[in-house]
Amino acid sequence: MTGPAEPRGHPTPAAQTNRLSSFGHIDWQQTLDDICTDILPHLGKGQVADYIPALASANPKAFGIAFSTIEGTTYTAGDWNTAFSIQSISKVFMLSVALAEEGEKLWRRVGREPSGSSFNSIVQLEREHGRPRNPFINAGALVVTDTVISHCGDEAGIDRLLAFLRESSGDQAIVVDEKIARSEAAYGDRNRALAYFMKSFGILREDVPITLETYFRQCAIEMSVANLSKAGLYLAAEGLCPISNRAVANDAHTNRVNAIMMLCGHYDRSGDFAYRVGLAGKSGVGGGIIAIIPGVGCVAVWSPPLNDAGNSYAGTLALEWFSHRTGVNLF
Amino acid sequence: MTGPAEPRGHPTPAAQTNRLSSFGHIDWQQTLDDICTDILPHLGKGQVADYIPALASANPKAFGIAFSTIEGTTYTAGDWNTAFSIQSISKVFMLSVALAEEGEKLWRRVGREPSGSSFNSIVQLEREHGRPRNPFINAGALVVTDTVISHCGDEAGIDRLLAFLRESSGDQAIVVDEKIARSEAAYGDRNRALAYFMKSFGILREDVPITLETYFRQCAIEMSVANLSKAGLYLAAEGLCPISNRAVANDAHTNRVNAIMMLCGHYDRSGDFAYRVGLAGKSGVGGGIIAIIPGVGCVAVWSPPLNDAGNSYAGTLALEWFSHRTGVNLF
Amino acid sequence: MTGPAEPRGHPTPAAQTNRLSSFGHIDWQQTLDDICTDILPHLGKGQVADYIPALASANPKAFGIAFSTIEGTTYTAGDWNTAFSIQSISKVFMLSVALAEEGEKLWRRVGREPSGSSFNSIVQLEREHGRPRNPFINAGALVVTDTVISHCGDEAGIDRLLAFLRESSGDQAIVVDEKIARSEAAYGDRNRALAYFMKSFGILREDVPITLETYFRQCAIEMSVANLSKAGLYLAAEGLCPISNRAVANDAHTNRVNAIMMLCGHYDRSGDFAYRVGLAGKSGVGGGIIAIIPGVGCVAVWSPPLNDAGNSYAGTLALEWFSHRTGVNLF
Amino acid sequence: MTGPAEPRGHPTPAAQTNRLSSFGHIDWQQTLDDICTDILPHLGKGQVADYIPALASANPKAFGIAFSTIEGTTYTAGDWNTAFSIQSISKVFMLSVALAEEGEKLWRRVGREPSGSSFNSIVQLEREHGRPRNPFINAGALVVTDTVISHCGDEAGIDRLLAFLRESSGDQAIVVDEKIARSEAAYGDRNRALAYFMKSFGILREDVPITLETYFRQCAIEMSVANLSKAGLYLAAEGLCPISNRAVANDAHTNRVNAIMMLCGHYDRSGDFAYRVGLAGKSGVGGGIIAIIPGVGCVAVWSPPLNDAGNSYAGTLALEWFSHRTGVNLF
Repeated sequence: MTGPAEPRGHPTPAAQTNRLSSFGHIDWQQTLDDICTDILPHLGKGQVADYIPALASANPKAFGIAFSTIEGTTYTAGDWNTAFSIQSISKVFMLSVALAEEGEKLWRRVGREPSGSSFNSIVQLEREHGRPRNPFINAGALVVTDTVISHCGDEAGIDRLLAFLRESSGDQAIVVDEKIARSEAAYGDRNRALAYFMKSFGILREDVPITLETYFRQCAIEMSVANLSKAGLYLAAEGLCPISNRAVANDAHTNRVNAIMMLCGHYDRSGDFAYRVGLAGKSGVGGGIIAIIPGVGCVAVWSPPLNDAGNSYAGTLALEWFSHRTGVNLF
Repeated sequence: MTGPAEPRGHPTPAAQTNRLSSFGHIDWQQTLDDICTDILPHLGKGQVADYIPALASANPKAFGIAFSTIEGTTYTAGDWNTAFSIQSISKVFMLSVALAEEGEKLWRRVGREPSGSSFNSIVQLEREHGRPRNPFINAGALVVTDTVISHCGDEAGIDRLLAFLRESSGDQAIVVDEKIARSEAAYGDRNRALAYFMKSFGILREDVPITLETYFRQCAIEMSVANLSKAGLYLAAEGLCPISNRAVANDAHTNRVNAIMMLCGHYDRSGDFAYRVGLAGKSGVGGGIIAIIPGVGCVAVWSPPLNDAGNSYAGTLALEWFSHRTGVNLF
Repeated sequence: MTGPAEPRGHPTPAAQTNRLSSFGHIDWQQTLDDICTDILPHLGKGQVADYIPALASANPKAFGIAFSTIEGTTYTAGDWNTAFSIQSISKVFMLSVALAEEGEKLWRRVGREPSGSSFNSIVQLEREHGRPRNPFINAGALVVTDTVISHCGDEAGIDRLLAFLRESSGDQAIVVDEKIARSEAAYGDRNRALAYFMKSFGILREDVPITLETYFRQCAIEMSVANLSKAGLYLAAEGLCPISNRAVANDAHTNRVNAIMMLCGHYDRSGDFAYRVGLAGKSGVGGGIIAIIPGVGCVAVWSPPLNDAGNSYAGTLALEWFSHRTGVNLF
Repeated sequence: MTGPAEPRGHPTPAAQTNRLSSFGHIDWQQTLDDICTDILPHLGKGQVADYIPALASANPKAFGIAFSTIEGTTYTAGDWNTAFSIQSISKVFMLSVALAEEGEKLWRRVGREPSGSSFNSIVQLEREHGRPRNPFINAGALVVTDTVISHCGDEAGIDRLLAFLRESSGDQAIVVDEKIARSEAAYGDRNRALAYFMKSFGILREDVPITLETYFRQCAIEMSVANLSKAGLYLAAEGLCPISNRAVANDAHTNRVNAIMMLCGHYDRSGDFAYRVGLAGKSGVGGGIIAIIPGVGCVAVWSPPLNDAGNSYAGTLALEWFSHRTGVNLF
């Protein structure tokens, strides 16, 4: 799936330089404050996720934004300290854990191409014999979680992810919201169908109920935008976590996780996000989004109402402005 | 389709700085020469496109590479001066022409999302009422060509594109290979089907035979990698062509064309290209690929044999090495 | 596709007996008259086909019904003598012509399974490499027409069908309504797309414009229900036309054409028609339907407004009553 | 879904006459004996179902055939007395039970159109919001079983079906093969996926594990062709069981169950079966098939190896010969 190995004698160039200095003219705090003000007329547009009762009660006017630099500084505005359900954003971190454990072999059971369909579609799975298109649609995320369980043990999959998030954000208090986890399980028949479907093709290896339970719990992890913007920094810093000052991921993996986020991070609206924001990002139906600026930092936003593709309406708009006003667009 | 307009008082920051200096340590010529040597054992792998006789006769061992900087220097190696059929790479330039003429209204008739299927699939068109997913699958490219014809007149569509390519590459000798154009027409029933299908939904506006004729001719344009690496520079330089020293495209458009290339430039292998190369690129079944490094330059490769997704096998590998050895990966 | 040949020494039993005597207690004329009366409150329900202007002007309150026995008697009621556009009903007769010319080899290029999708869907064609599922969806009918042209010559395909219809109905005045044929051509881009799509797979053999022209003209043939009920008799009489007293089709073929009508005659509502009416039948968007009662006769109805699957609303209802009141349901 | 009610004053005609006398010239026993001899060279062709170990051990050379008349006589040949797993043939009888309990309301949750895809496809379910196309694909059969459970209670669904089969065949010894039932459950992940998928749309009403358990057990019922040919007689006799001399089903329902069998009884090869055999029939992956001749009788065959659509190879051939040699083809 990857190309032939490099011929010998061509070492990788020195790691990408810290690009923060190129943005020395930007007043990050002012940028966040301005966005917080300008976004006010747009709060409440869209529809709060209501497929489970526990999410439907989110405040539709809530808005938070945080930006952390790869040097470890965090700027915040709005409801930056409110913990919310990170939902599918968890898929990014679980993918990093799975790549650390399983390496490139992971791609035998899940692809890395955009799906051209919605996040919970089963059509593609039938056409492609149970192998999901990418790790960010629900089916692909279940494969990733199943892989982590294979390496860590039944109960320890969720603990491994929590340990990763606590270290990379520097906040030991990150936990699963058990009420939301139970609600996910109660309304989880579609995900059950996806899991048993893949199991019938031999794509899942572990017991389906245990994989589902872990998946429902990872989606129910609660974090604030401040924590998320710190937790995502290793993706902007080639695997180095500036909070713990440790390598939490392989540098080749972070390049690649960012590439997958760019292509698949917003379901069937990933092209629109790339077009408007120009950054690799990942959204969750709780209304959060993270976006990575390699060599610079990580920005996280939160606003519960979603657009018709299931991505935060005001969150996407805020990131579009952030990208436009600071010039961090990769393209 | 795009977000609400920016609130007043938030002007765009100064244009992205020239990033070439960050790569001052790279010996570009040596990099190209090394790739030319290292690629030798891989030449001939894959399958030369044979859907039309005129392409099937390409030399399977041919290989050329060229890199042009935004300051106007071009480095070359291998068969850098051989003209070949640019095929779908023409879609990028025609899209820039269409956006110049039609602006954002273009997106009413074509999307900008990955398709999750092959370049000539008609399935998605039926499901989505004749509106193609993006401008780089065949159906979407036909919409783009139809748009340019609407603005330029029946015969002038192809002339407009040729003028654009001649200016941006600085080579007035660029022409259509009429033999290939006739061969495309002779074997063009699938594209005819796509065009009439879209016409039946009112997505195409012009006469189908004229749109098809223009499309067949644009695919048959011949260029060398040297010319292609120059022609693509405006996409790395926010619309400014360093060859003619003129703005040939709107800066907002180039950001966005790059984003679409990143997400859709390699058909159903775009995710793989992003994962391995980490650059926005576009391939053609003639064996060419261009890739854009914003603020730095444009690299073009050519090797006729294709992988099973229709992208140059050795070309992709060469770009993977180029990205890895120079560190230009965006992620 | 068919089973191995019968072992020798097992001749077919004598042709199915005339079953008309089993229905000696039925007053056919009274049955038709009653239906004509009872249907009045339902006339006008549904939607007259309007995809071409020439059909949209049909009288939505028109209703005709005719029943012909295999002994050659015809009973009629309502607008039984008004000629209307037979549209897709022509596909049945053209299939009999094609089977007479090409025999079972026809099935190499067209299947005989229900499609599970609408009459003009192109999705299935892509999945199954250009081979249509059955001869009664548009794509399959184009293959049938293409076959007849192969045997009869470019101009003679339509003449062959007209000769067949004139003989089997005993009416030499049957003609194409040229105004409707031109209207079909003017609005025929979807069928053009289907034809070029199949041509690209080598499923069509003849020139696409000639096949399309013949197809548009066969759909525009005008007949009354009286004529249709006579023309279909050979399908109830194992190939013997009681009007001309000649075998116009092979007896094995009529069995099989009836089977295909039962399974595919009403597009994606064939199951509903079988469930309610219990007869092999074929509808057209002009509002006509014929239904076959093997060993007994043929019934034809006409009422222009269509249900949402494109079949005559009142026509289907009338046939349901006819089947129920006379007991001719095959099941 | 059905048409408007009949206007008053049009009673149904007398029940269809016993048509057995029309076949007075047929020597049924000789016909079965001849088929048994002629089929010998074809036994072993095809592939015994091996998706569960318990079925894979079936004797590939086994062949049995039985024909029962509506007057209660049974003719047999070959392995007519060997019990085998009836598998999907159970869906016919369970449908009759469900229609008896739920009536036409059943069609709100399951369609009656051919699916155009394989027996265990999930694609159509996504497109049509969880409502299966017909009661004979796996998803539709799960809806039927779920319905019977709603009326009979959790444990009693399978008992209700067994009571129906024991009465209609006159054999009180009919039971579930518990070893096969356990094997079905052990390899049932695809059916689990179908069930949870429908549950997520609210199409299934009962607990998924109970519905699945009942479904796995109904598929594992064991019967001989002699028993099956008797059990199916009510479908040829408008609901009257000649064995028990009781009405076991509504006459309108039997018409309609036969229609659905004709259109959907052989998965994506139903058109081929109608074309070759011309009877309503239902196959199972255990190698059995029943076919109904209204007013005449029911024929059952058994031979384990299957064709590529999952229907008995030799069984289909034997029925083709039976239909051809006796002239019972409906068309």
